[in-house]
Amino acid sequence: MHRSRLTALVIDCHDMEAGIAFWTGALGTEAIRNDDPGDPYVTLEKKAGSLTLLLQRVPETKACKSRIHLDIETDNVDAEVARLEALGARRQQMIQGWWVMHDPNGNEFCVVPVQSREFPEGAATWGQ
Amino acid sequence: MHRSRLTALVIDCHDMEAGIAFWTGALGTEAIRNDDPGDPYVTLEKKAGSLTLLLQRVPETKACKSRIHLDIETDNVDAEVARLEALGARRQQMIQGWWVMHDPNGNEFCVVPVQSREFPEGAATWGQ
Repeated sequence: MHRSRLTALVIDCHDMEAGIAFWTGALGTEAIRNDDPGDPYVTLEKKAGSLTLLLQRVPETKACKSRIHLDIETDNVDAEVARLEALGARRQQMIQGWWVMHDPNGNEFCVVPVQSREFPEGAATWGQ
Repeated sequence: MHRSRLTALVIDCHDMEAGIAFWTGALGTEAIRNDDPGDPYVTLEKKAGSLTLLLQRVPETKACKSRIHLDIETDNVDAEVARLEALGARRQQMIQGWWVMHDPNGNEFCVVPVQSREFPEGAATWGQ
């Protein structure tokens, strides 16, 4: 008998500082750094529910389309896309009301209109 | 002023039936299908905390290394890897006590020893 569960979501970064700057800004959280320069992982303070969010330093740059991506939901797609652009993300394509974007490490994510019944529980508020 | 939050994790599947069979088995959950054959999304019943887990039908097969991956934590790595192999995953590489595996769509994930202080909260129990 054994047990298991999903525990973490790991985002590759060939440019770790750009990854930290973008994802802490995007999610409104802090990076938890440790003192070991050989450690390729940086944990984000905010979890996605029970899922720990990790950035992982990797040597290679992105070579093809992301196969797993994250969706950020928002009550103002245009304002959220502009906010994320200012943090270093790039617009790729608009599809039926949502935007496909790339983070500074080339990782794909989408900005989508409110999806969740419980929104805005857990949502961050941006702007004035 | 606007609000946003992470809402979903989306896993690409060029073989949707293989993706459903694997991920429902791996996580101990059910797929929520709808009646629209044109809808490329299948939702998994179990969420990862506040994060909705979606499978997305895509035409292309995997062409290079995953840039975002999931970790599954377990109190028995060998038993969990064997269980996931039986569901169609393949071992890639053992690194310092954890296994890098590929799901049937070629998406990378890792099976790691218990990471969380709150484990086994939310963990599924497998075997006798």
